[in-house]
Amino acid sequence: MHIHSCIADLRAALKGRGRIVFVPTMGNLHAGHISLMEQARAHGDTVVASIFVNRLQFGPNEDFDKYPRTFQADCDKLAAAGVDVLFAPTEADLYPEPQEYIVEPPAIQNVLDGEFRPGHFRGVATIVLKLFNIVQPQAALFGKKDYQQLMVIRNMTRQLALPIDIIGGETVRADDGLALSSRNGYLGPAERAEAPRLYRLLNEIRDAIRNGNRDFAALENAAIAGLTANGWKTDYVAVRQQSDLSVPAVADARLVILAASRLGATRLIDNIEV
Amino acid sequence: MHIHSCIADLRAALKGRGRIVFVPTMGNLHAGHISLMEQARAHGDTVVASIFVNRLQFGPNEDFDKYPRTFQADCDKLAAAGVDVLFAPTEADLYPEPQEYIVEPPAIQNVLDGEFRPGHFRGVATIVLKLFNIVQPQAALFGKKDYQQLMVIRNMTRQLALPIDIIGGETVRADDGLALSSRNGYLGPAERAEAPRLYRLLNEIRDAIRNGNRDFAALENAAIAGLTANGWKTDYVAVRQQSDLSVPAVADARLVILAASRLGATRLIDNIEV
Repeated sequence: MHIHSCIADLRAALKGRGRIVFVPTMGNLHAGHISLMEQARAHGDTVVASIFVNRLQFGPNEDFDKYPRTFQADCDKLAAAGVDVLFAPTEADLYPEPQEYIVEPPAIQNVLDGEFRPGHFRGVATIVLKLFNIVQPQAALFGKKDYQQLMVIRNMTRQLALPIDIIGGETVRADDGLALSSRNGYLGPAERAEAPRLYRLLNEIRDAIRNGNRDFAALENAAIAGLTANGWKTDYVAVRQQSDLSVPAVADARLVILAASRLGATRLIDNIEV
Repeated sequence: MHIHSCIADLRAALKGRGRIVFVPTMGNLHAGHISLMEQARAHGDTVVASIFVNRLQFGPNEDFDKYPRTFQADCDKLAAAGVDVLFAPTEADLYPEPQEYIVEPPAIQNVLDGEFRPGHFRGVATIVLKLFNIVQPQAALFGKKDYQQLMVIRNMTRQLALPIDIIGGETVRADDGLALSSRNGYLGPAERAEAPRLYRLLNEIRDAIRNGNRDFAALENAAIAGLTANGWKTDYVAVRQQSDLSVPAVADARLVILAASRLGATRLIDNIEV
């Protein structure tokens, strides 16, 4: 695996490489990331991963500084997964000056996670566009665990006419159902034992909808109550249309159930398509 | 010259074409545009022009509807100038749905022309990024007559890490000094005779600065008075730093003098580097 931190070196290394498939990450890699790397192989000739903890998508009170950096272990995992090229820039490489030109997403950036993380999706869209411009891939993979992020990137790519196929990878879960996440490492043992409740409650909502229940608000509120009763602090549990997360669910649309809730200081998100 | 309106056809036609040089226009081509086309040849193997009147950069009370469309004459001029490929999309090709993902420039978008044309540079940045993503050139040329536009595009390109060289082309002028512009066609005969005053006044400011005058505000105000006395309605005459148009001039910096003023219903802009 070739590792580049400099944009010019990376571009030179990718010249003439055939179809490039790109998987951007913030590092601290787990089996969910590795699953994306393995899927990437089927979509092109050269698999490029990136590791960059993007300050622009963290709020002032979020965990940018304590976000886990595990570079050597990440490199070993990527090499073992058959990644061809790793782009691992420093902040000075990607933000040599303050980022002033910004990709501004529409209303979707202000709902769900966007409501609780102001500016987050603007920061995501801007860095992903920059990384796309640097790597110039023909396809890129993003995990469905960050469902709203996947939608923002898919819509941005289409609306800005980028010639890139955006592919969503299924969420990888622990045996007890907890969605793998770099932030799971923040959980203490008791929190880790409690954490799978989030996914169980999403499944309960899905089962209820499949059984004909269309009182989405009641289903959301029951799940929130179930979380609260067990010590969670919930930002949202929401049934939405897959095609537009800023639009409430209606019967017969393709739906997705999304949730964000905190156990202690750790904020977990998950979702499930119906 | 090959002409394409469909994005997929254009991309297929440009595949394997070597170094692509791109000159986007809104049509109604004059010798200033043709000069850019001819300069383009020196920067690559394939010269691609585009013609698209971009609704997104016009204000609600501006001249989008009456902006001159002269497609057949434009094609003849481009072919004669040796342009290889013309991209001439319809609105349905470039905006198949309302444009919701926007490139938001920083403070420069709110000064000078941006103050008098709210949203203009946002619309320019967004369409140019889209056209860049479609054409994927290695270089692109823009006229210096739209100086602030050139700066916005140059800065956007650098900040979004686009691998494109942005080249500014010198303003082409009529024998009497008037900068060529598609909007000159709106001028009546008396207005056309008066119009060169704008450039003459910019030259007077430049000469005064070269002769040591550093009272930029007085120079600006004298030029505005000279325009007003001759029936112009002036938006601005401003001495600014070339490196950042949102910053007022200081002695010893590289300067540019910019102006926008209206003769009757026609708004003319011009500028001159010191």
